[in-house]
Amino acid sequence: MKLRKDAAYVIENTLKEINPHKAVQDALKDYTEKAYIFAIGKAAWTMGKAAWEALGERALGGVVITKYDHSMGEIGNLHIFEAGHPLPDENSVAASEYALNLFGSLNEGDNIIFLISGGGSALFESPEDGVSLKDVEGLSKELILSGADIKQINTVRKRISRVKGGKFAKICDPVKIYSIILSDVLGDDPGFIASGPAYADSSGVDAAIKIIEKYDIKASGHLMPFLKKELPATVTNAETRIIGSVAQLCKTVSEILEGLGYTPYVLTENMSCQAREAGALIGSIAAKNAVDPAFKTPCAIIFGGETVVKVTGKGSGGRNQEIALSAASHIGGLPNVCIFSLGSDGTDGPTDAAGGVVDGTSYKKYLDFGTTPEECLNDNDAYNLLKACGDLLVTGPTGTNVNDVTVILISGEAK
Amino acid sequence: MKLRKDAAYVIENTLKEINPHKAVQDALKDYTEKAYIFAIGKAAWTMGKAAWEALGERALGGVVITKYDHSMGEIGNLHIFEAGHPLPDENSVAASEYALNLFGSLNEGDNIIFLISGGGSALFESPEDGVSLKDVEGLSKELILSGADIKQINTVRKRISRVKGGKFAKICDPVKIYSIILSDVLGDDPGFIASGPAYADSSGVDAAIKIIEKYDIKASGHLMPFLKKELPATVTNAETRIIGSVAQLCKTVSEILEGLGYTPYVLTENMSCQAREAGALIGSIAAKNAVDPAFKTPCAIIFGGETVVKVTGKGSGGRNQEIALSAASHIGGLPNVCIFSLGSDGTDGPTDAAGGVVDGTSYKKYLDFGTTPEECLNDNDAYNLLKACGDLLVTGPTGTNVNDVTVILISGEAK
Repeated sequence: MKLRKDAAYVIENTLKEINPHKAVQDALKDYTEKAYIFAIGKAAWTMGKAAWEALGERALGGVVITKYDHSMGEIGNLHIFEAGHPLPDENSVAASEYALNLFGSLNEGDNIIFLISGGGSALFESPEDGVSLKDVEGLSKELILSGADIKQINTVRKRISRVKGGKFAKICDPVKIYSIILSDVLGDDPGFIASGPAYADSSGVDAAIKIIEKYDIKASGHLMPFLKKELPATVTNAETRIIGSVAQLCKTVSEILEGLGYTPYVLTENMSCQAREAGALIGSIAAKNAVDPAFKTPCAIIFGGETVVKVTGKGSGGRNQEIALSAASHIGGLPNVCIFSLGSDGTDGPTDAAGGVVDGTSYKKYLDFGTTPEECLNDNDAYNLLKACGDLLVTGPTGTNVNDVTVILISGEAK
Repeated sequence: MKLRKDAAYVIENTLKEINPHKAVQDALKDYTEKAYIFAIGKAAWTMGKAAWEALGERALGGVVITKYDHSMGEIGNLHIFEAGHPLPDENSVAASEYALNLFGSLNEGDNIIFLISGGGSALFESPEDGVSLKDVEGLSKELILSGADIKQINTVRKRISRVKGGKFAKICDPVKIYSIILSDVLGDDPGFIASGPAYADSSGVDAAIKIIEKYDIKASGHLMPFLKKELPATVTNAETRIIGSVAQLCKTVSEILEGLGYTPYVLTENMSCQAREAGALIGSIAAKNAVDPAFKTPCAIIFGGETVVKVTGKGSGGRNQEIALSAASHIGGLPNVCIFSLGSDGTDGPTDAAGGVVDGTSYKKYLDFGTTPEECLNDNDAYNLLKACGDLLVTGPTGTNVNDVTVILISGEAK
């Protein structure tokens, strides 16, 4: 039970610590201009509020576009919109049009504080003239099914958007943009975070066409002129600063665990494989080290990143829930180990949970409940089993989004 | 280059050290009886020869059944057979019938040294009366396709065999059997190594029927009486000793690496997830620790186990080759890291390679060759790319079979 308590303590305090409110204020400490505020993404509300407070009377107004149920109230005179995620919807487009009208009408000498967080790609979307939201959806789905990876998908999608791939910065030019970024993209490339609305594109003129050909995508003919067009290769009116990332998440978790007496070992900040397989390997690492530790105990073995789930079943769950459930099979009966996996945004997959927490008692609980982790994972149904057995991790929306962290806690050698 | 040399040194010396010849001789040091020798599995020849030499004039003859091309010559008057693996074939059955005739005709007071290694399940197979090899194959394939795991598959298959699940020991009773086992099964359960021909079965009377029902297997009607039958729940004429396992493999690798100045960290001895996903996670662990080590460097991070490959492509490869190739994508350009993945039997998948070895130069070599690891892995074609780029690991058959080991070597912090 001590391990579970420690896990809960680490999660609570990590989420407090990595909340972007303070980080945005730090980033604006030496900023002395009057400015408009534009915040997009799952953390847009928190970041927008922090900027509004930091600028004080220098805040001239602006727009916040966040996910449904992610606004926590009014922020001065900022216009707050909620819209669709992970797929953009009519509200994404309407909010984005509003923002483009406002920011596109500013003049030389004006400034925009552009606060970007994960989810921004769906929430800030306005298709090119002649392209419909249906076109965006259709192309996205075809690309996803073709086996193209997320970078390839975004390389194509940027071109049928009016705002992605540096185009938003071009629309605002010569207005100065200061981008403050909470990274949800492993490796922190600003061109890929929210599809880089204010960042020069480095993909080259024929990048999208090559991908279309490679995966044999049957894009509608009227999209082709956009796919062949080059994106802005330089952006001169925007500067960029990254204020949060999975590396910082791992560091914060480490520091809090050190305070509890654990020696932390961050093994990766780029875990991006399949969730269930990651869970199996992490579970086996936990089991070995619970019995015969390769580390100084008590220890915490930490994996940052963002895994993927290939959904083939009909159940409910998310990548962190799958990691936890998959790992549980390996540590059944061990008294000295606990594993938790946490989505930093508090929303793991399309569920109201942030992840899962399992220990040596979990596996037996699942069997007693009448199923096995394997069966649930085959149906991508981690949520219901974790929930029924008290192993679900629920935090509510956290106001941030810097990927995920999975932690093995080992209290000492198993007796 | 130093890292690659160290990798080659470790591999060569590990294979020398874990060769079962010495381990079999140690196990027979205090054995004073006259005995027949029966060796099955991929390491049968080496183990049989070691026993023959250890017994000297007390060796009364016997049988060796190993995989095609795994016999290295005559051993005294032992009858040496080569047969099918991973699926049993006519030669498996013929060799097994010969062995059953010989060992089944011995008398009280006689002794059998039973040398068991991985692959024994296919090589030592004689179906129950009325069951054909085709029946065995058909049931195996249906079980594999149903999603049943290997333990479930073996729980069913044992029942249609005349020799598995303790039945061989019963045939020989009251002849005494001394089983000396080289474990290729994670967790080292003697009931599952070569399907436990001389080990009591603990699955219970209705275990096979439950699995058949659960996975909706349409087993032919004439198999049902066998599936309903109980296996020997006690075996009184056999004792068992495990002389080699993946844990020992990891220990040996650690010791040799320590001799080269690396600090070894064994993270798991039970890695059993999908090879490609394991490679991705291991690659990301390598990349993080090459740049920002969580360990004392120079270090070796060691993963023992046996991963799986779900073949969907048409290429050539094996699980260790897939681990290496998948990991290579993550360490491109890093000067201080090398990863190798080795099948201890020297036969990785249906290839003549033992695995792969990759470093920071590998990824660029693959691109220059005109492909990517992703593309090759999608077609399960790791072999040809690794071979073309000098990253294939070839040892030839090693005479042992104690699963696999994957090792990250980090020489120090990246400059």
